[in-house]
Amino acid sequence: MATRFVDERNVDFLLYEVFDVESLTRFDYYSQHNRKMFEMVVKAAVKLSKNMLFPLFEEMDRKAPELAGGEVKVHPSVKKIIKEFADGGWLTSTVPLDQDGEQLPAMVADLCEFIFAAANYSANAYAGLIRGAAHLIESFGSKELYDTYIPNMRGGKWQGTMALTEPEAGSSLADVATTAEPAEGGHYLVKGQKVFISAGDHDAVENVVHLMLAKIPGGPAGVKGISLFVVPKYRPGADGLEPNDLATSGIYHKLGYRGCPIAQLSMGDKNDCHGWLVGEAHQGLKYMFQMMNEARIGVGMGATAMACGAYHAALEYTRTRTQGRRPGQKDPASPPVPIIEHADIKRMLLFQKCVVEGSLSLLTLCSKYVDMTHVLDDSQEKEKYHLLLEILTPVAKSYPSEAGVLAISQGLQCLGGSGFCDDYPLEQYYRDGRIHPIHEGTTGIQGMDLLGRKVMMQNGRAFGLFIAEVEQTVADAQKYQPIAGFAGELQAALDRLKNVTAHQAGVAQSNGPEAFLADAVLYLEYFGLVTIAWQWLLQGMAAQKASEKGAKKKDKNFYTGKIFAMRYFFAYELPKIDGIERRLMADDWPTVEMQPDFF
Amino acid sequence: MATRFVDERNVDFLLYEVFDVESLTRFDYYSQHNRKMFEMVVKAAVKLSKNMLFPLFEEMDRKAPELAGGEVKVHPSVKKIIKEFADGGWLTSTVPLDQDGEQLPAMVADLCEFIFAAANYSANAYAGLIRGAAHLIESFGSKELYDTYIPNMRGGKWQGTMALTEPEAGSSLADVATTAEPAEGGHYLVKGQKVFISAGDHDAVENVVHLMLAKIPGGPAGVKGISLFVVPKYRPGADGLEPNDLATSGIYHKLGYRGCPIAQLSMGDKNDCHGWLVGEAHQGLKYMFQMMNEARIGVGMGATAMACGAYHAALEYTRTRTQGRRPGQKDPASPPVPIIEHADIKRMLLFQKCVVEGSLSLLTLCSKYVDMTHVLDDSQEKEKYHLLLEILTPVAKSYPSEAGVLAISQGLQCLGGSGFCDDYPLEQYYRDGRIHPIHEGTTGIQGMDLLGRKVMMQNGRAFGLFIAEVEQTVADAQKYQPIAGFAGELQAALDRLKNVTAHQAGVAQSNGPEAFLADAVLYLEYFGLVTIAWQWLLQGMAAQKASEKGAKKKDKNFYTGKIFAMRYFFAYELPKIDGIERRLMADDWPTVEMQPDFF
Repeated sequence: MATRFVDERNVDFLLYEVFDVESLTRFDYYSQHNRKMFEMVVKAAVKLSKNMLFPLFEEMDRKAPELAGGEVKVHPSVKKIIKEFADGGWLTSTVPLDQDGEQLPAMVADLCEFIFAAANYSANAYAGLIRGAAHLIESFGSKELYDTYIPNMRGGKWQGTMALTEPEAGSSLADVATTAEPAEGGHYLVKGQKVFISAGDHDAVENVVHLMLAKIPGGPAGVKGISLFVVPKYRPGADGLEPNDLATSGIYHKLGYRGCPIAQLSMGDKNDCHGWLVGEAHQGLKYMFQMMNEARIGVGMGATAMACGAYHAALEYTRTRTQGRRPGQKDPASPPVPIIEHADIKRMLLFQKCVVEGSLSLLTLCSKYVDMTHVLDDSQEKEKYHLLLEILTPVAKSYPSEAGVLAISQGLQCLGGSGFCDDYPLEQYYRDGRIHPIHEGTTGIQGMDLLGRKVMMQNGRAFGLFIAEVEQTVADAQKYQPIAGFAGELQAALDRLKNVTAHQAGVAQSNGPEAFLADAVLYLEYFGLVTIAWQWLLQGMAAQKASEKGAKKKDKNFYTGKIFAMRYFFAYELPKIDGIERRLMADDWPTVEMQPDFF
Repeated sequence: MATRFVDERNVDFLLYEVFDVESLTRFDYYSQHNRKMFEMVVKAAVKLSKNMLFPLFEEMDRKAPELAGGEVKVHPSVKKIIKEFADGGWLTSTVPLDQDGEQLPAMVADLCEFIFAAANYSANAYAGLIRGAAHLIESFGSKELYDTYIPNMRGGKWQGTMALTEPEAGSSLADVATTAEPAEGGHYLVKGQKVFISAGDHDAVENVVHLMLAKIPGGPAGVKGISLFVVPKYRPGADGLEPNDLATSGIYHKLGYRGCPIAQLSMGDKNDCHGWLVGEAHQGLKYMFQMMNEARIGVGMGATAMACGAYHAALEYTRTRTQGRRPGQKDPASPPVPIIEHADIKRMLLFQKCVVEGSLSLLTLCSKYVDMTHVLDDSQEKEKYHLLLEILTPVAKSYPSEAGVLAISQGLQCLGGSGFCDDYPLEQYYRDGRIHPIHEGTTGIQGMDLLGRKVMMQNGRAFGLFIAEVEQTVADAQKYQPIAGFAGELQAALDRLKNVTAHQAGVAQSNGPEAFLADAVLYLEYFGLVTIAWQWLLQGMAAQKASEKGAKKKDKNFYTGKIFAMRYFFAYELPKIDGIERRLMADDWPTVEMQPDFF
């Protein structure tokens, strides 16, 4: 079994050297904090992860949830884990002080979640869903809903979920068929089916609170008729909790991510499932997008975290496993070397390092943008960071998800046959990680979101802001001679991205929406590679700065590793845009013209 | 559950339209066969697969082998399966007539194996190991070994294995530590450990016959001191079979490929494990390479077969699952479409089709090369096909293995959340398929074999033969106007491959073996993309020819699908060489310079 799942030094590097979290404390909103406190928080997250979450990583996979007697039974430790998250303040870390929260910067809180997820993704999923669902009620619900649900959720007694998907409405939420009829008493009567609901039912909590999409009969068709409801498993009544006619009709047997159940729900079999409207009618999808966007970035973080755990397990193995000799060493009597000395193994490890630390850098930057929307008063400045978040969300969800799967696979490959067997955790990471390109909007959906919506919105305003941010980094990095060449390469890639983007806009004009969106996933991949190259230039620059100041031996190795990873990314990963570009600039559409009967 | 795992029309297309198997019957060696017989054989393979193997595909995964009382218990059906293979002549399909075999062309026999493996890879693995081990004894063993072992193996009563790997000798066979001391009576006393032995022990057969590498004390160091032995679980004695001091010390709990056990073996705990030398001492690795090369191509075939099963399951799902509307269709009341109508889904399916059918074409060509070595008398012509096989073996092993993993992953993605759950077979294919880049030489080993050995051997003679074959296809295809453009693109890619190859040779000269081999895996990937583009041009040409002759409606769709797949491969896959080339032509070596301490 591996013993390490995260590099704390890298967390510090991102917080203090790349993204300067301390600068946030100069703003009123975060002025009660300082670096010392951030360090304590991160240490506490590491401690909880090491002592409790990581030791359960494998066991929660092996003893997967079961549906018995109409209720989902999860691993007995889940109850303890949720309590620990609640007691430690981890369910309220970014909640404002006036709501009894910690009011921590998102940068710090999200990196703590990253540490939890690297130790045990499933364990962190329970907490993430509680946080997101509570935040949704806090943002758009009535005071009554707040008082009834939030203290119990944030206290770790009630689970939260996001209940969108239905048998006939997955990627296409326009087809949501669950109905909510207004009833006397201010509630609605809910009827329908939901599927693929993470933590949708389990016995480690007293109640499960679903943030559920449904349609009020008579409303507009499609997504414009979707409303958001709180639909609990048990509803609060005069004598405490009473059943709310919400049944768990099944759970899924999954490839991975087995520590957390995914349930099928049936509402209103007896016409007695009560739901409470959140905010205004027919505005449900808009509201839900707050939780969905948080969840999408959370998925990117989870994907990065799993790839991080896998990377450290592979590192550990390759440092100790001996096999073969260096090329050119012909003497079979010479001792075999640790396999981490083989260039091909270093190549696979550098790939993993680049994916993990490049993704984590992007996600931390996204967290910083969230923080900026909290600290700024100027609504135009706020809007800037909001737009940057909008355009980067599909990238921050998809790059880590897609590249994370490949990184874990390379980690498994480093272990050879042992990677395929359950004596080592790689096979579990391989199973677990495959969920990320699927949940919270598939990669296909993210591609359409990026190209069809985010890049084009407000006449490309978000895209322009993104370009400006990257160009600022290029300008900064050009001041450091040893990395100026990489800055030039990034600028060239960025110019090509602008060109490719303009070409896509032209396709939309002349060839219509189907051709325009046919290769949206490739555009997303292209965009992702440029974005992560940007993150590596940011990290390379920080490492270069620190090296120039003079660093201790151990830090020197760390910074040199960052420079090597940047070199690797620019030498091996960024060039992948060449082939994608050849495709994206082409003017024929085989995937559009292809007909089902030809398969 | 999926109902289809293979496209018989495509098997016919390769046999009769692309590679003209009938032409083989003009040679003496295959003159007793004709198309009618080939068709009957393929039909029988499909029937066995549909009636017996595919229905057990899932069940053999769920009820994985167990080690109990020192013996491995496999699914009870395995016994029936092996008997069926033996009775049907499937263990002797390419064995010469004078040894009671069917003497079928490898093209036909291998495509039948493909069909078996597409239905149930694990089931076919038992048979493949028997075939390969028996062939090894047949090729290099004494008459006594032949008589003792082969009838029992080919009769399906005794399992065969290849026993190479040890705890400290996986990729590096130079470090084999198992010893074989000459004993009185003509046998050797074997002592050591073997690990990762597929079908290394099980209760569906009476005996297990290991073709095992070991070192005779006093022999040369490294690979030059390796000898090959037959080491049975039970040795034939005066009163029948008696225990041979060969214990099963463990089995692996694996990610996938669970229908077949992988065992750890301990030989000679009581100094009474007998082994019999095959051929001459110290020639073991050379002999074993016959089975290993067959096994490598077999892995490529298995990887293609699994990806094929996954592709057909994804096709079936996407044809029936409805979700969403075409871009531009804004009316939410319009009915949702089968998802196979979405361009992004068609893109993912075309990728799978390209990987599966492109790989299968390459493997069938390799089988044809095997057949040519059987039918030709001229030793120089024989040598040509032998060299083509040599250079293509690492490609035929690795491209299907690596691309197959990605193809299955795209198949899983087509199913969304359902792909992640065990109600559909995609999650099993995803687990099963991950073995292929590992077993029978990892992708890293294949890369070094291709670049370091095969491309360079005999002053590039094999490489030259490969180039000539591809250029012949280019010349042929240029005669068909609608596909002449693709021929031109392939020629351009081939010229670039020559250029990249020359550059690598230069690196070997000026930068030494470590830099030379550092990116061998990327070179392999490049080579693979060009090779599969070649296969698509071959198939596109056959489809074009057939279309020009006029085809029935159903065939017309089939041929149009082939043309689309060729277009897709040239538009989406072949351009990937651009980015790899940028890397391969670079003159810096971050993966060589990177030091373990920098991670």
